[in-house]
Amino acid sequence: MIDKLVKKIQETDAPITVGLDPMLSYVPEHIQKAAFAEYGETLAGAAEAIWQFNKEIIDATYDLIPAVKPQVAMYEQFGVEGMKAFQKTIEYCHEKDLVVIGDVKRGDIGSTSAAYAAGHLGKVQVGSKTCTAFDEDFITVNPYLGTDGIRPFVDVCKEEKKGLFILVKTSNPSSGEFQDRIIDGKPLYEHVAEKVAAWGADCMGASYSAIGAVVGATYPEIGKVLRKVMPNSFILVPGYGAQGGKGKNLVHYFNKDGLGAIVNSSRGIIAAYKQEAYARFGAEHFAEASRQAVIDMAEDIRGALK
Amino acid sequence: MIDKLVKKIQETDAPITVGLDPMLSYVPEHIQKAAFAEYGETLAGAAEAIWQFNKEIIDATYDLIPAVKPQVAMYEQFGVEGMKAFQKTIEYCHEKDLVVIGDVKRGDIGSTSAAYAAGHLGKVQVGSKTCTAFDEDFITVNPYLGTDGIRPFVDVCKEEKKGLFILVKTSNPSSGEFQDRIIDGKPLYEHVAEKVAAWGADCMGASYSAIGAVVGATYPEIGKVLRKVMPNSFILVPGYGAQGGKGKNLVHYFNKDGLGAIVNSSRGIIAAYKQEAYARFGAEHFAEASRQAVIDMAEDIRGALK
Repeated sequence: MIDKLVKKIQETDAPITVGLDPMLSYVPEHIQKAAFAEYGETLAGAAEAIWQFNKEIIDATYDLIPAVKPQVAMYEQFGVEGMKAFQKTIEYCHEKDLVVIGDVKRGDIGSTSAAYAAGHLGKVQVGSKTCTAFDEDFITVNPYLGTDGIRPFVDVCKEEKKGLFILVKTSNPSSGEFQDRIIDGKPLYEHVAEKVAAWGADCMGASYSAIGAVVGATYPEIGKVLRKVMPNSFILVPGYGAQGGKGKNLVHYFNKDGLGAIVNSSRGIIAAYKQEAYARFGAEHFAEASRQAVIDMAEDIRGALK
Repeated sequence: MIDKLVKKIQETDAPITVGLDPMLSYVPEHIQKAAFAEYGETLAGAAEAIWQFNKEIIDATYDLIPAVKPQVAMYEQFGVEGMKAFQKTIEYCHEKDLVVIGDVKRGDIGSTSAAYAAGHLGKVQVGSKTCTAFDEDFITVNPYLGTDGIRPFVDVCKEEKKGLFILVKTSNPSSGEFQDRIIDGKPLYEHVAEKVAAWGADCMGASYSAIGAVVGATYPEIGKVLRKVMPNSFILVPGYGAQGGKGKNLVHYFNKDGLGAIVNSSRGIIAAYKQEAYARFGAEHFAEASRQAVIDMAEDIRGALK
């Protein structure tokens, strides 16, 4: 899957993912109204609204991008109905041949991580049959529990040719509270990064490991350091745009081959029509605004990498 | 909710939770067969099997215990159908007046943590209506992202009178890889524990804070230290029984009032019938085996606390 991701990045010349994080407040009123008319102001109504919203954005952008990153929390908040929308979104992205990065940030002890890995990346055994549940291509995972919390995910990745992005340095303001603390002369995030490199060493694709890292766009100096600590790991970079990151700050997240990082934007793309720069599209044409925002973002990053 | 938890612990004289972590391999064949006969060897069949399994265990134990701790991964692995079983299990436990601790280990940046908090502990706004999704009483959360990843959960806890157990020191063998690393003369888990105490300071119930901690049963010496670092925090203690913890080792997780900790056992109770000690019950009477295992566990801990 890491090879497919690299290939699709090269084909689209756009190392970006669209974050499908549909807060209900991003969904234009006409879509909400239609969904509520059919299902009422219920969890099912909300789930239908975010699904229709996603579908239009996918239709308007899939030819420009290699991957999407749905944030499961935005679906999980609507309960079982929300999880149906999550699954439908993943299936639809697969139909469009997009790489799907499930932003689930799971992580637990051995057998429990194994269950998460089976549900999101692998297969589960039910009697004599094997079934698949959510079936993302990559997921994000949390490293706080150490190697035996991560190993079951890595095992499934090897078996199923899937991949991970492990949280190393997150984009939020207080990420430093624990992640930046100095241990033996180096910040915790650097120790985690060394582990990511080690965990990924025997999961190599053609040029990159299937085991990548999450490093926020909001800390470019740290990105520069971590790029060197994990030379073979792909870096998923959240925090572009709305959280403040810009293309020119992200150059050092990439390797000299122009690869090695993939930058995510969520609100900046899916709610583009709410920004002044794209207001001309109007709420009716929100998906076209998203398409334009993708074009602009890809150009910004391409320009910076030149 | 923390006051309800304390009250129920006092009423049952049993500071224990039953971990509803139904691996399909724990579910007796007669239940699997019945579920597969109705739904096939499908995700829906698996979900039905674990739900029926849970229901019998709840029916056989609810009068002895204050709380249950369903591990969401065991449901999530069966996709949307599994999440339906998770929800049904929570609802049924509420009917039985059990405190429900959702072991979800979520944690993300601000707005995303807010969505998880809404979905698991609070309410979501859908048009003019407010809806509830999974509606646990407590959930477990991961601290790696720092204060602004935790704050949205704390806010919802205050609003809805719910609670958290924040991962401090987990029970797995490699938990020390990051959690034990020394920062300014103290292990990381102690820094996290100090934050837990601070985050919980303005969420006090009658005697304990709504913001608790997870500290594994497998590290009793650490439990002793952390008890003092977080005097007002309830400690959820996983790893009893199957993972090696025993009542006599857990005394120091409790305060002098005999409160302040709640010990979880999952496999040791729900799969008790598979152990030699309870084999006499047989697979047909697995729930009675679970009941006996609860009685024995409560006695072990009561004896140790005397």
